[in-house]
Amino acid sequence: MDVTATTSTLASAAAEVARLLPGRVLDPVLAGLVLRADDDGVVLAGSDREHSVRLARQAIVHSSGAVLVPAKPFAETLRALDAPEVRLVVEGSRLAIRTPGARFALPLLDVDSHPGVSLPPALAGHVRADALVAATAPVAGAASRDDALPIFTGIRLRAEGDRLMMLATDRYRMAVASVPWQAAPGGEPLDVLAPASVLAEVAKQAARAGLVALHADADRIGLSWGDDSVSSALLASPFPDERVRKLLDTNTDCAVDVDADSLAGAVRRAATYAGAHGTVTVQVDDGELRVRGSDPQAGESDEAVKATVNGDRATKTFQVRYLADALRAFAGREVRLLMQEGLRSTVLTAEPGDDGVELTYLVVPMRPPTR
Amino acid sequence: MDVTATTSTLASAAAEVARLLPGRVLDPVLAGLVLRADDDGVVLAGSDREHSVRLARQAIVHSSGAVLVPAKPFAETLRALDAPEVRLVVEGSRLAIRTPGARFALPLLDVDSHPGVSLPPALAGHVRADALVAATAPVAGAASRDDALPIFTGIRLRAEGDRLMMLATDRYRMAVASVPWQAAPGGEPLDVLAPASVLAEVAKQAARAGLVALHADADRIGLSWGDDSVSSALLASPFPDERVRKLLDTNTDCAVDVDADSLAGAVRRAATYAGAHGTVTVQVDDGELRVRGSDPQAGESDEAVKATVNGDRATKTFQVRYLADALRAFAGREVRLLMQEGLRSTVLTAEPGDDGVELTYLVVPMRPPTR
Repeated sequence: MDVTATTSTLASAAAEVARLLPGRVLDPVLAGLVLRADDDGVVLAGSDREHSVRLARQAIVHSSGAVLVPAKPFAETLRALDAPEVRLVVEGSRLAIRTPGARFALPLLDVDSHPGVSLPPALAGHVRADALVAATAPVAGAASRDDALPIFTGIRLRAEGDRLMMLATDRYRMAVASVPWQAAPGGEPLDVLAPASVLAEVAKQAARAGLVALHADADRIGLSWGDDSVSSALLASPFPDERVRKLLDTNTDCAVDVDADSLAGAVRRAATYAGAHGTVTVQVDDGELRVRGSDPQAGESDEAVKATVNGDRATKTFQVRYLADALRAFAGREVRLLMQEGLRSTVLTAEPGDDGVELTYLVVPMRPPTR
Repeated sequence: MDVTATTSTLASAAAEVARLLPGRVLDPVLAGLVLRADDDGVVLAGSDREHSVRLARQAIVHSSGAVLVPAKPFAETLRALDAPEVRLVVEGSRLAIRTPGARFALPLLDVDSHPGVSLPPALAGHVRADALVAATAPVAGAASRDDALPIFTGIRLRAEGDRLMMLATDRYRMAVASVPWQAAPGGEPLDVLAPASVLAEVAKQAARAGLVALHADADRIGLSWGDDSVSSALLASPFPDERVRKLLDTNTDCAVDVDADSLAGAVRRAATYAGAHGTVTVQVDDGELRVRGSDPQAGESDEAVKATVNGDRATKTFQVRYLADALRAFAGREVRLLMQEGLRSTVLTAEPGDDGVELTYLVVPMRPPTR
């Protein structure tokens, strides 16, 4: 193999592959990057069996071939190069990375013992990249990071007609997004539970694409855009769809329209006074919300935020970080808070943006502190 | 006390005081910020007994007074405010931070039980702020972070005529800077060992000042600029001045002039191949330096950097991070490497910059790896 390519192009692709692969594994082959050159250019790929990534990039191919090299030094070396062009050439038992004056020689690993990089499963449909990014950030943020209960680390993806529903909950808050969806003709309807961390990472990488294709079968989910594709094992556990549906049946006592950023600012300032339990109180008053905190060391806070109030007065206590996360999802917009009786969840919604994403965020209130 | 002030002015001053004070202490009084208002404006101050900081700021003083409040919530609240102006007013047992629509009430601590904020000791002389910053960054970086050997966590400061000598070593490398110095008439000559971490932090804060005054007595060092001052307890242990002097007596076998950034780039790229001991080899060749690394997993690297060589050929092995630190201190400049026999240190120097700072950096080479 012997290729010449733009350093920055290869460096960013190698970084994406390296980011996906495990840092320290017993089997160095699984920490390897597959580099394949043929008439179409080069493909950089990797797989730790659970996740796979495959990125095609332009290159001048002097002679074709495929090698497996350690991903981390390959990515690090390309990133650190100042030279605009780089040559990758097999020399004996080494892949040489050459620039004028410098040679970096990576050992060739046994490419035949690599498990291979699976192609994404069957095409299910397409979403706009900007809508996927806008929806994935808040939804993935509401997923749990605790692997002890894997279903709550996932995003529930379900296509219904021309909408894709994305939902995640860690049991204390829940984010639901509905995104415009183009089902693939003759494809199976998408209905899976995918790892939230993988979707969040991939959505960021796909942000500059126009359309993102979603692929799925019984075991895997795949996303592809341009010449790039990523696939990942699904989470197996059944999701409590029925309970989620009940939570979304709201019975509102009080609806409040408020500028999300103004309320987020007040909540951010009250966080200093959130006490040992990290809670703030939101009281619905005439034409305003009052955000209050109280902490034995720091003192007390009380801030009023202008709002349009419809319905009964209500006072709710929230985990300050859950409320802050929820409001961040509506940044720059007017948000509607729907408050329900007692400890039933408070629902945040807004008019859909230009990207057609409809977002609903539920935060479960806490028992008021006894201070 | 009742004052009105610009929020950003107070916020940055409060952040500086809070940064200096210990985060969690048994005695909340030592984590307190002293706020004093009189006809001249406000003074924000704090002291954890070891360090003291005192910052004077403009404010409209409606009524004077002095209070002690918890520093962290005070700084956090001011930083989070959007309102351009803020009012600070004592209300009963609270200091109220007020903006339109919001009130944050911090408990008043017992100002009489505070140890007080010591003024800096006697004036020793002045340095230009830009020279102090340029010298402190590399010198403080060469100090040890290991508190088990306190003398190596310090910067040795000694005034000699119109130069201030600053020196630090962690025993594996040493940085020496000589900075233009204006001794105070009739002042004692400066000759102290000061904590490197404090000087590094303070130099950053003083960067925008024109001149920085240095103060010292037998126990403390102080720095002041504009209306701000900081003081800190000195490190008590005697410094091995005699051994340091011997290290600076160089007996050069080989002198190499090279662009510091080009060599730093090659060293950065070789770091991937630095192996378990984190070492790279620098070989002096005809008209170039060759930087080499070797790692059992990552492979080998070999890069040539153009250089002007005078004297014998030599090959030295260095800790890659020490060599990278040393070269960073000469960023953007031509650096001269003076190589000595065997395991005697390699000396890096350069022509002084516009700020008049003369910098010398010594790195002790390692035994070559046996691979």
